[in-house]
Amino acid sequence: MKILKDRIVADGVAIGTEIVKVDSFLNHQIDVELLDQIGQEFAERFRDCEVTKILTVEASGIAVACMVARHFGNIPVVFAKKAAPSTMTEGFYGAEVKSFTKGTTSVVRVSEKFLKEEDKVLIIDDFLAHGEAALGLSNLVEQAGASLAGVGSVIEKQFQGGSKRLRDLDIRVESLAVIEAIKDGEITFSERLK
Amino acid sequence: MKILKDRIVADGVAIGTEIVKVDSFLNHQIDVELLDQIGQEFAERFRDCEVTKILTVEASGIAVACMVARHFGNIPVVFAKKAAPSTMTEGFYGAEVKSFTKGTTSVVRVSEKFLKEEDKVLIIDDFLAHGEAALGLSNLVEQAGASLAGVGSVIEKQFQGGSKRLRDLDIRVESLAVIEAIKDGEITFSERLK
Repeated sequence: MKILKDRIVADGVAIGTEIVKVDSFLNHQIDVELLDQIGQEFAERFRDCEVTKILTVEASGIAVACMVARHFGNIPVVFAKKAAPSTMTEGFYGAEVKSFTKGTTSVVRVSEKFLKEEDKVLIIDDFLAHGEAALGLSNLVEQAGASLAGVGSVIEKQFQGGSKRLRDLDIRVESLAVIEAIKDGEITFSERLK
Repeated sequence: MKILKDRIVADGVAIGTEIVKVDSFLNHQIDVELLDQIGQEFAERFRDCEVTKILTVEASGIAVACMVARHFGNIPVVFAKKAAPSTMTEGFYGAEVKSFTKGTTSVVRVSEKFLKEEDKVLIIDDFLAHGEAALGLSNLVEQAGASLAGVGSVIEKQFQGGSKRLRDLDIRVESLAVIEAIKDGEITFSERLK
C-alpha cells in the first residue's frame, strides 16, 4: 500500500535493527483518515471471505479493527483483553502470548459469548512481528470452533518471521507494508508483496 | 441519546449498585454502527468548540475517540498510554489516575510531541465514573498549555460524582447516557440531561 509505505518513510523512526516507531500516526497519535484507507484496503483484500467478525487485541489494534469493520458493513469488532477485568465473570477463551521485547508472557482473553462456531473471523493488528499475538488470537478462534479468514497486519516486520510461522500453518496473511530490514536508520520494504 | 439508553437497557447488565456491564457493544465487543452514531452526537454537541484533537486513554476509549474524530473531519486522535512503552524514549506528560475498582494508582502518559499549546482538546472516554481518568487527561492538557474544549463520556455514572468534580473545575461535560442509580438489576437514567 503505497500511501502507507510513504508515510512510514516520512514519519516513521527506525530504531536499531528491530524497531520502527510509528507513534505519530498509528499507535499513539492516530491519523484517522489514513486508518480509513487502511480499513478499505483490508476489506478489499478479504472481500471474498464472508467475514462476520473482526478480532484484535488491545490497545493499538482497536482503532484499525474498527476502521476495517466499517468497510465490511459495520460487522462487530471484538478486542481480546490483556488483563482479566473484574466484570469478566463468565466463561472465556484464553491463550498465552509471549512478548519478545518485554520478555514476558501474558494471557489474552475473549468472552465465549463473542466468538461463535458460525463466525468467520478476520484477525487485525497494527504490527506483525514474531506472530505471537496473531497466533494467540487464532488459538482463541480455534477454541471457539469458528473459522479463520486470515490475518491482516498494517506493518509486517518480515525478518522477525511471524508471517512465515502463520503461513506454515496455512493461515492467510495480508500485510499492507512489509519491512524486510531496518538498518542504520533506513527502512527497506519487501517488494515480494504489493 | 435515546438509541444508546435503549441499548443499555436491552443489552447492559447491572451488577450490584456500581457496575453496568456493556461488553456486548461498547468495551469488549464493539457495535461500530452505534459508535458511529455516538461519534456524530458528540461532534454535534461540541460543534462550536473548534476542536483540533481528540484525547482518550487506552483501551476502550480508543474506538469511541476514532469515531468522534471522523465526525470532526478526521482530526487526530491521541490515546494516553497506561504503561510506558519501550519506544517512548522522549519527553512525555504524565498524570496519576486512581482506580477505585482496582484500588490502584497508575500513570497515564502522552508524548509531548502530540499535545501542543495551540491545540483545542476534546477528551473522550467510554465511562465517566469518579472522574479520575478525565481529570488525569485534563491534567495532561494543562501541562501542554493546550486548551480544553470539554469532556465527552458515553455513559456517565452520575452517582459516582465524576461529572460534578469536573464541572466544579469549570470543565464542560457532555454524557450521552446519564445513569442515576443501579439497583436490583435495574438501571435508572437521569432525566436532567438529554
